[in-house]
Amino acid sequence: MKIINGIAINEEISTGEITQHIGKTIRIHGSIYKIRKMKGFAFVLLRTDRSVIQCIYNKDVSNFDISDIKEESCIRAEALVKQEKRSKTGWELTLLNVTILSEPIEGLPIVINQKIVDTSIGNLLDFRPITLRNERERALFKLQEGICNGFRKFLQDNRFTEIHTPKIVYAGAEGGANIFHLDYFGKEAFLAQSPQFYKQMMVGVYERVFEIAPVFRAEKHDTSRHLNEYTSVDFEMGYIESFEDIMQMEVRMLKAALDELNGNYQAELELLAVRLPEINDIPAIRFHEAKEMIAACYAREIRDMEDFEPEEEKLLSEMMLKRTGSEFVFVTHYPSKKRPFYAMDDKDNQEVTVSFDLLFRGVEITTGGQRIHNYHEQLEKMERRNMQPGEFESYLMMHKYGMPPHGGLGLGLERFLSRLLNQDNVRYSCLFPRDINRVTP
Amino acid sequence: MKIINGIAINEEISTGEITQHIGKTIRIHGSIYKIRKMKGFAFVLLRTDRSVIQCIYNKDVSNFDISDIKEESCIRAEALVKQEKRSKTGWELTLLNVTILSEPIEGLPIVINQKIVDTSIGNLLDFRPITLRNERERALFKLQEGICNGFRKFLQDNRFTEIHTPKIVYAGAEGGANIFHLDYFGKEAFLAQSPQFYKQMMVGVYERVFEIAPVFRAEKHDTSRHLNEYTSVDFEMGYIESFEDIMQMEVRMLKAALDELNGNYQAELELLAVRLPEINDIPAIRFHEAKEMIAACYAREIRDMEDFEPEEEKLLSEMMLKRTGSEFVFVTHYPSKKRPFYAMDDKDNQEVTVSFDLLFRGVEITTGGQRIHNYHEQLEKMERRNMQPGEFESYLMMHKYGMPPHGGLGLGLERFLSRLLNQDNVRYSCLFPRDINRVTP
Repeated sequence: MKIINGIAINEEISTGEITQHIGKTIRIHGSIYKIRKMKGFAFVLLRTDRSVIQCIYNKDVSNFDISDIKEESCIRAEALVKQEKRSKTGWELTLLNVTILSEPIEGLPIVINQKIVDTSIGNLLDFRPITLRNERERALFKLQEGICNGFRKFLQDNRFTEIHTPKIVYAGAEGGANIFHLDYFGKEAFLAQSPQFYKQMMVGVYERVFEIAPVFRAEKHDTSRHLNEYTSVDFEMGYIESFEDIMQMEVRMLKAALDELNGNYQAELELLAVRLPEINDIPAIRFHEAKEMIAACYAREIRDMEDFEPEEEKLLSEMMLKRTGSEFVFVTHYPSKKRPFYAMDDKDNQEVTVSFDLLFRGVEITTGGQRIHNYHEQLEKMERRNMQPGEFESYLMMHKYGMPPHGGLGLGLERFLSRLLNQDNVRYSCLFPRDINRVTP
Repeated sequence: MKIINGIAINEEISTGEITQHIGKTIRIHGSIYKIRKMKGFAFVLLRTDRSVIQCIYNKDVSNFDISDIKEESCIRAEALVKQEKRSKTGWELTLLNVTILSEPIEGLPIVINQKIVDTSIGNLLDFRPITLRNERERALFKLQEGICNGFRKFLQDNRFTEIHTPKIVYAGAEGGANIFHLDYFGKEAFLAQSPQFYKQMMVGVYERVFEIAPVFRAEKHDTSRHLNEYTSVDFEMGYIESFEDIMQMEVRMLKAALDELNGNYQAELELLAVRLPEINDIPAIRFHEAKEMIAACYAREIRDMEDFEPEEEKLLSEMMLKRTGSEFVFVTHYPSKKRPFYAMDDKDNQEVTVSFDLLFRGVEITTGGQRIHNYHEQLEKMERRNMQPGEFESYLMMHKYGMPPHGGLGLGLERFLSRLLNQDNVRYSCLFPRDINRVTP
């Protein structure tokens, strides 16, 4: 019998600690990112968990041959830490000994150790297990982590409880045809389009809840804005006085995420030359007014009075940036017809809902709004839409037995990151994207 | 045009702040959990986000009639904070005015405001949207939140990067028949049984990664230990020297979760009378030895030399508790036949793997181990199993182009919570469980 006691083994030094060891020999590990041979010496870039460290191979002091190591070999090494004022870190490593832990069986099919991976998006995604090893590619998903951390910390500080709701569901929350069907032991089930029903139920339990989890949309069009599976940041809060409380909360949440990036992800922001937006006063315009403003400003004909064309979202963002300086714009009071059955209608105008979208740099990143909390009101709205309330019995249970006024939102994590980076395709901001033609890797 | 600036609206007081307002009138909100009428006054229990607060209705000072409020009505109230030494909190609230925000349309079909919800598990789950409003039921899922927070904080402090991997996948990681099939635009796809392939790929990128997300198992048996969808806590780490490094890391992670509960969830622990386990020295026994020890100790016949019967896991836990005082036990070196194709075999005995399970109070809560990182070794093992390596091209890409020695584990969040609470069915620890007969609510 052995004993496992959780006492940390003597670990190798992490990159952040190297600076405390100037003049000493340390043990480190990592992947060989790049080798640049010079006369009598070589630069060896070592990729560690979050940095790429420049090491020196010097045949006079290094106890191995430079040809022993290959790019993408994983190694352990002993290295001497030397003060080096020209280096950004203030030090430089000279490799003394290396142990090869593994090496690639052949040269890489794609160059990953240049500034960018210079290839088509198709190749980039096909070779994801290796293209993600590129310094910039992986920096992007550190920012994704940072955004989640910022959101989560903010929501927890504001008394939101984190929940885990099922993704195999008995009914779609958003309606429509873009839902995946599943054979569930001979019965039909679906993949959740959103945690909508569950987060509402949980408002009756904890007042404020959130979830960061996958959602699934069987979108049949192959666009640069859509993914068939994405990470949705959802929150839902009770005891609101107006749907504007939700927008206020979102603004604060977004600020918290940017603060987190500024505070803990400077290296990645610099590497990717990210220009973070300012968040101060975000304008909020009613949907109908926005439609008319765009038409007037750009001399465009309005073809669909009930929805935006993608081009209109872009123009609206452009226009509001010029007029107000804000890269964000809320659009409110969407037509009832275009919103789900649980959306609350405006008391002053039943044709529109007390709901909103948030556009950021030309693309919708959030949909939110107040929900119906009154049982009879919800029942009537379902009946007006020829829905069968009997199919939603467990959903309606919460309305039946008392719910506070409430609302919430869903934010697409990949879309938000993609707009932060000004990418022309949301797939760049998803580790392993799923679209109509892609389920691998 | 309106302006949304994220400046917090003047919020009502949260429960934790009430103590600073003794002698003053405050505004609060919540659901009426229970009304106990006495002579000339009543106790009104108000359920807020995390507490149940005792309020006094006194017809001499309360400006409403007690019959105006019902159990499960949502209210806003003005209340006077009085010092009250007999109260646990040191204060007591007298209700002055209430505004009814909503009320149930009929009496509840099930009593939720007693100490426990006294009903069958079937009813408990059928009525989840309201039974979760019970003080203890919801406390349970606060503990779930606390466990996740503890794990996440620990992993981030130890340089693990949080990732989001796809749940719609092209191949199952665990093999076998218990996988859900999906019609993905006319092609066949599956629901992920684990993030195995992706977390391994990401070790090549960040060295250490983790994910807390749903996984799906099409288990056809209806047992008290299985869910068809559960939340899996997965981590994977590179540059290990032995699979024991993973076990050491897990022990520290578990300690961190218990510390988080002790530090920030005392109220819930007390309410549920949870006895947290001690984690000091956890014994680790080889699978074959464990089988023989159980057989000898309990005079049982060994029927299956390659797997545990559930009863044997229970007996092993019992035996190890007696012998070592530990409620946890690692079982190591499981037979290769019973482990997936990516499990690394023991160099000294190809019949067993350098893998482990962790049992806690009689049930397996974790499976982990070292993975094959060498391309040729992985290819050979797949060929020995008559697998088609061509189907796993994108998975094998990482091995081909260099991977460090690595391994990791998956822990079932609901199972762990369920054992902490000594429940006889894992469904109690899942908000909305999915089993062969249940996809609602």
